[in-house]
Amino acid sequence: MAEIRRRKQEAGGDEDAACMGPSISPSITEAEKRNSSAADSSDHIDSEEERLPEEKFVDDLSKSIPQGTDKTPEILDSALKDLPDRWKNWVIRGIFTWIMICGFALIIYGGPLALMVTTLLVQVKCFQEIISIGYQVYRIHGLPWFRSLSWYFLLTSNYFFYGENLVDYFGVVINRVEYLKFLVTYHRFLSFALYCIGFVWFVLSLVKKYYMKQFSLFAWTHVSLLIVVTQSYLIIQNIFEGLIWFIVPVSMIICNDVMAYMFGFFFGKTPLIKLSPKKTWEGFIGGGFATVLFGLLFSYILCHYQYFVCPIVYSEELGSMSMTCQPSYLFTPQDYSLKVLGIGKTISVFPFIWHSIALSLFSSIIGPFGGFFASGFKRAFKIKDFGDMIPGHGGIMDRFDCQFLMATFVNVYISSFIRTPSPSKLLTQIYNLKPEQQLQIYSALKENLFDLLT
Amino acid sequence: MAEIRRRKQEAGGDEDAACMGPSISPSITEAEKRNSSAADSSDHIDSEEERLPEEKFVDDLSKSIPQGTDKTPEILDSALKDLPDRWKNWVIRGIFTWIMICGFALIIYGGPLALMVTTLLVQVKCFQEIISIGYQVYRIHGLPWFRSLSWYFLLTSNYFFYGENLVDYFGVVINRVEYLKFLVTYHRFLSFALYCIGFVWFVLSLVKKYYMKQFSLFAWTHVSLLIVVTQSYLIIQNIFEGLIWFIVPVSMIICNDVMAYMFGFFFGKTPLIKLSPKKTWEGFIGGGFATVLFGLLFSYILCHYQYFVCPIVYSEELGSMSMTCQPSYLFTPQDYSLKVLGIGKTISVFPFIWHSIALSLFSSIIGPFGGFFASGFKRAFKIKDFGDMIPGHGGIMDRFDCQFLMATFVNVYISSFIRTPSPSKLLTQIYNLKPEQQLQIYSALKENLFDLLT
Repeated sequence: MAEIRRRKQEAGGDEDAACMGPSISPSITEAEKRNSSAADSSDHIDSEEERLPEEKFVDDLSKSIPQGTDKTPEILDSALKDLPDRWKNWVIRGIFTWIMICGFALIIYGGPLALMVTTLLVQVKCFQEIISIGYQVYRIHGLPWFRSLSWYFLLTSNYFFYGENLVDYFGVVINRVEYLKFLVTYHRFLSFALYCIGFVWFVLSLVKKYYMKQFSLFAWTHVSLLIVVTQSYLIIQNIFEGLIWFIVPVSMIICNDVMAYMFGFFFGKTPLIKLSPKKTWEGFIGGGFATVLFGLLFSYILCHYQYFVCPIVYSEELGSMSMTCQPSYLFTPQDYSLKVLGIGKTISVFPFIWHSIALSLFSSIIGPFGGFFASGFKRAFKIKDFGDMIPGHGGIMDRFDCQFLMATFVNVYISSFIRTPSPSKLLTQIYNLKPEQQLQIYSALKENLFDLLT
Repeated sequence: MAEIRRRKQEAGGDEDAACMGPSISPSITEAEKRNSSAADSSDHIDSEEERLPEEKFVDDLSKSIPQGTDKTPEILDSALKDLPDRWKNWVIRGIFTWIMICGFALIIYGGPLALMVTTLLVQVKCFQEIISIGYQVYRIHGLPWFRSLSWYFLLTSNYFFYGENLVDYFGVVINRVEYLKFLVTYHRFLSFALYCIGFVWFVLSLVKKYYMKQFSLFAWTHVSLLIVVTQSYLIIQNIFEGLIWFIVPVSMIICNDVMAYMFGFFFGKTPLIKLSPKKTWEGFIGGGFATVLFGLLFSYILCHYQYFVCPIVYSEELGSMSMTCQPSYLFTPQDYSLKVLGIGKTISVFPFIWHSIALSLFSSIIGPFGGFFASGFKRAFKIKDFGDMIPGHGGIMDRFDCQFLMATFVNVYISSFIRTPSPSKLLTQIYNLKPEQQLQIYSALKENLFDLLT
């Protein structure tokens, strides 16, 4: 245990730095040796010699991939020069955490459109970070068309997914402009046609020497799209359900990251997972409790403002987005009777608070696995960080690795437990039908209601 | 050109065999040399020496991957022993093509359920073929949990996608059984939970020595799922729209494959694409024309039967699937006035015929790119076929490579050009609302209809 503590001090306590380099702790190395010798004893495993080519391949990689440099602004560097390294990193990380939190608050103040644009920008940046690792891994500077192709696929998939959202929420508005109508009606067809162009382009760009690299990058691009684009599409959907469904989960992940780091920094002793040697059980548990508490408090505050709890709908009357509403059941205090020490008591709680517990549990138990996954990925390709945009933190992807999994969870959670089919959405669909079909629904509904009421 | 002919004879005229081995035609080799020397002259390209590790890696692969053996049943082999190789392959391929076509007809006769089960089986087999190439490529016999993990992901994604279909089409029926109700209500949540288990399992199974292989296989699995599972989900949706939307496109691809092979076999001269040296322009164009003609004729025949044109719906009255209906506009002959040589004429045509032209054009122009993609993939990993299940054809995936792209096209085509929101589906959604919400819709609809009619 003392060993681990010392190691942490040497490395500056950076909880996220997944690459330990050669100075790995003896206990871990031993466990790995045991593991590999167990594997070696099985019949199937390839001998060390046989595995050589890829081993060499991966080793060579790490030389060519630019390692995330922990670049620090000069002014900070000179101000902190007297601090020990461990604390220096702590301060830098802290400062930039606060800068990011303030930035986030500003964007929230900017409203839903600002949040959606930010989501799009973050998505593009994450894609760029993942893809450039792919470029480096397969060293494909000379590969025909590859840069253009992956950006083209990013474009088409965004066209499809963002378009789906736009059609869903603004279909009525867009339909009113005659020459945009076909964009709504044929949205899927147009997206598929765009994708097919990319697909044909890819096949035509295949060059014998590079087949394997090209297919690997094709897969790499598509997995990145799966992670980045589809999930940012879900994030946008969450925003439409009401800002609270976006702000609370994102803040929970941030809180969990920060608090796990703090608990780990001050109390960390027991290593949690081999994959990320800097993560400790103390950080994991402390961060979890802090996140649940924070979630309760933060949700309680946000529940009071229509700005956060109202779904975002296009208002025909205002001719613009509307964020005012009669708060739904979830955001109206309800009375719950409790029995504490034999004495009956009634408390008044926003039902959303109960849901916030589910969200914070997910963000502190499953959420970190998004981070472990990213750590493993970074170690697989021997890189330290995805980029070097944020001093003390690494690239954008390093900060958002857990956000994506969380966004999907929130989306699924809403669609399973919260969202009920809304009468107004159904009405829009009915109005799109022919008059005789509307009449058909009308009579069937009349009959059904009559049966219900008698 | 004579060179190409000779080459084809040597190789037995197998149009699909993507692996030419060393005996590549001089013209192609020269073009490739030009290509690579152009690349070499750029600053970015890695020198031959630098690329060594992966080159060796890929070369080593081809030794370890089992090559599709063109195994032929003995009885056929001895019956055909006097034929030249080129014709022998022709006959074997022909026989098994007919066997497969008859099998397909039998399954159609078995009805929609048989077709859906077949789709599922084909999907599983394709997944297995793609995944086992991945196993061989990364030689991961000793990798912890990997086989289980990829099958687990196949299971969860099928649970999600097939479930979505079941909920869509049988939701009402399933909802009637009390203890199955939660499966419908929480379908997405359950699927996501299952996926999360797999994700956590993957992260926990990471072992230092194998990081890169494990992440590569994770990507490999997910790309296979993207290709195989999502598209077979679309196929099932197409079947529900009416058997004709499944049978016509599938037959078109088969027809295009067969006719391109035949035209290429007898008239093939001009090579089409470097990727598949056996494909010729003659085959491509001849196959295209044959497919359009076949599509017209075949659609015309199927349009006459309710069995093929009726959407498959669950009938409350029968308590089972129903395939009878009043054929929709598409499948009722319409009069079109034509002017031929100045003389006005009226012809009666099923509107579906026009759509069949769009389908056959796609299947003969873009469809083959699915095949080229598969060819390129096979060449990238130096395998001849995906498997050896069907003598003369290779694996299941070799036969279905173009079907997947086509299925997506048909699905998108239906949703963009054919499907209109159906009153009965909307009614089901309305009946799921609370009575007061139904009443709300009722009054709004009443007002709207009143406005429309006055």
